[in-house]
Amino acid sequence: MTITIVNIGDELLIGQVVNSNASTMGQLLTAAGMEVRRTVVVGDDYAAIWRAVDDALHESDAVLLTGGLGPTKDDITKRVLCDYYHCELVENEEALSNVRRLFEQRGYELTPVNRAQALVPACCEVLNNDLGTAPCMWFASNDPATGVLVSLPGVPFEMEWLMRNRVIPRLQETFSTGLILTKNILVQGIGESFLSDLIEPWELSLPADVSLAYLPVAGMTKLRLTARLPHHYPLSTFHFPLDGLYHLAGKYIVGEDCETLSELVHRTLLQRGLTLAVAESCTGGNIASQLTAQAGASAYFKGGVVAYSNEVKENVLGVQHKTLDVYGAVSEETACEMVQGVRQRLGADVAIATTGIAGPDGGTREKPVGTVWIAVADGDGCFAQLLQHGGSRRQQNIDRATNQAFAMIIHLICQKD
Amino acid sequence: MTITIVNIGDELLIGQVVNSNASTMGQLLTAAGMEVRRTVVVGDDYAAIWRAVDDALHESDAVLLTGGLGPTKDDITKRVLCDYYHCELVENEEALSNVRRLFEQRGYELTPVNRAQALVPACCEVLNNDLGTAPCMWFASNDPATGVLVSLPGVPFEMEWLMRNRVIPRLQETFSTGLILTKNILVQGIGESFLSDLIEPWELSLPADVSLAYLPVAGMTKLRLTARLPHHYPLSTFHFPLDGLYHLAGKYIVGEDCETLSELVHRTLLQRGLTLAVAESCTGGNIASQLTAQAGASAYFKGGVVAYSNEVKENVLGVQHKTLDVYGAVSEETACEMVQGVRQRLGADVAIATTGIAGPDGGTREKPVGTVWIAVADGDGCFAQLLQHGGSRRQQNIDRATNQAFAMIIHLICQKD
Repeated sequence: MTITIVNIGDELLIGQVVNSNASTMGQLLTAAGMEVRRTVVVGDDYAAIWRAVDDALHESDAVLLTGGLGPTKDDITKRVLCDYYHCELVENEEALSNVRRLFEQRGYELTPVNRAQALVPACCEVLNNDLGTAPCMWFASNDPATGVLVSLPGVPFEMEWLMRNRVIPRLQETFSTGLILTKNILVQGIGESFLSDLIEPWELSLPADVSLAYLPVAGMTKLRLTARLPHHYPLSTFHFPLDGLYHLAGKYIVGEDCETLSELVHRTLLQRGLTLAVAESCTGGNIASQLTAQAGASAYFKGGVVAYSNEVKENVLGVQHKTLDVYGAVSEETACEMVQGVRQRLGADVAIATTGIAGPDGGTREKPVGTVWIAVADGDGCFAQLLQHGGSRRQQNIDRATNQAFAMIIHLICQKD
Repeated sequence: MTITIVNIGDELLIGQVVNSNASTMGQLLTAAGMEVRRTVVVGDDYAAIWRAVDDALHESDAVLLTGGLGPTKDDITKRVLCDYYHCELVENEEALSNVRRLFEQRGYELTPVNRAQALVPACCEVLNNDLGTAPCMWFASNDPATGVLVSLPGVPFEMEWLMRNRVIPRLQETFSTGLILTKNILVQGIGESFLSDLIEPWELSLPADVSLAYLPVAGMTKLRLTARLPHHYPLSTFHFPLDGLYHLAGKYIVGEDCETLSELVHRTLLQRGLTLAVAESCTGGNIASQLTAQAGASAYFKGGVVAYSNEVKENVLGVQHKTLDVYGAVSEETACEMVQGVRQRLGADVAIATTGIAGPDGGTREKPVGTVWIAVADGDGCFAQLLQHGGSRRQQNIDRATNQAFAMIIHLICQKD
């Protein structure tokens, strides 16, 4: 069961929008045991869309198209599909009542532009879009040499809802699919190539149906194991062979079954019923924002202070003026006073603090851009670490410090086991 | 001058990594006047890479390949290119000395795995990668029917540096390129379809060489105008025709020439020399994090408080216990006390506060998920607005509240002009 994804939109080609739809779709399809063979992005261009659709229909069992369904003039997907499938654009009853329902709900008047959202190629079947006015259209194949085509809106949350509730169930019904299992292992504190050397004996011993990929992100490496199993394989009997990996690289493994370290922190704090507070200087709210992006964070996250200026470090966190004067804002001493300050003032069990020079400017000879002190604390004391990797890229420095802080708080919590 | 981008990596297809490389490349190429025709993503698979390369070379003047150059076993790009161009893998002197230099700099020992990074197909030219060990490889075309191919590492910051410093200058030298100009206009407070109706007369009057796209993001719509001009067009004589747009929709236009509202806030505060503090409940650090991701934010950003719990609202921001008791945490009264509190305590000229229910749970009948109070303040007082759009998606609620807050602070600052 193979899939080709075609994402339509000039904004994707010129880079004004990151193609998050492709990754969302890839995740959902992979989890459902379907294999994405290829993703193609084309602009709002008749010939380019036609060719992408035609190629994709000949190479995969199903083609998922996103975008170009909006009410505006640059949206031409429906026109291409009418011509491709040799049928007329007609008003669809179900789609129209859906548009009406949404406009009534929002208290807006139905304009002709919006009514046109209910026009679809006559040969497709409409899968109802509960969240938006653009229709989701299913084109069954008449020709045995070509696959099914599904056209979805490009609005990310509508697309995701339709994938989960309409498209994937329908694809599973139409095709019988093999099984794909994946497992993530988060590794921190060792570079990708050193890790590769270290775990090579284990990697070479993996069975043929299991593949390994290295995904380095901001100082952390995610190892992804993928197993491809036949349809009806008894899942309870399958286990990824991890003993060899733990034997060789156990001390660098921070956790399993998470996409990100923020997810692992979230899960760990919830499981243990501990509360957290954060004091961020150079990470500027990134730590708080990654944690609070996850539903349920309010159960453990007390709050945070983005202490960008020294005044805020002193007045809000209680860092001593003398400490800032003698050691500077970017120092172990300041990091420790920040973390103790935020933990006590916000009444949390554990806390994180960061202070550093994110760059691209502001470094000195002693403290170059990329110098970050990170501290974690619980009721028993404070532990600080220096991160210094010489990069001048601001976002990289912020992301690395964030990941390092997440790894440190997980170690702090789990070392007491 | 047309380009096809081919991004290689299983992690992209299964959605574990968002393909930010494609958007970065699209932005840089578009800004350099080159047209991205198509972006293709394929997995770490020999046949798929071969076919993508072959197709791309026959459809575009240049093909940019990313990924599959790492030291690990899943990286096969060089093997495919050797076979495609009928040449051997050989150790490249320049690439080896670059690998050596980087390992010495980092104080690491050079392992055989890392030394293998200096192996390249004999027929390519190495463009030096100052930031990493993976080589950037330029394959000139021998066959007039096919284009140039450049293979770049997939590590985003290495790729971006190589694009800016090696690849784009070399492409500009090799091809003479037409001009593409773009202009963004940020619109807030009106839905996409209503905006489309409103500005239709202006849109229909646009000259043929200017195209318009609507990019709705989290409650904001970015209008992108693109002009395609011939090589050597006198740029100083070209102007986008915006009078008609301002005449029809001026009151919804927040700014021009920015990608995001956070960029506009950043620029506006820097230009006016005003300082900012933020108090975030439901946005959880997202406002602070978006602002501090931009270099130079420390010139205006005093800091922020992520006041997730009521205790923090009271103890750190000075919201009265009575206010929380009588009106609740999600109320105009609390938002105003938060914004005044953070402005005064952090000593800023202007301030933003948010308090709401991000979801997916935690809503009530009176205050459903998606209810957010946003307040902005300066020395003259506080202004608050209610956002209530009934969505249950956490990240959407956070992003919409963030954009609304940014639009409000821009209005607050600019209304005094």
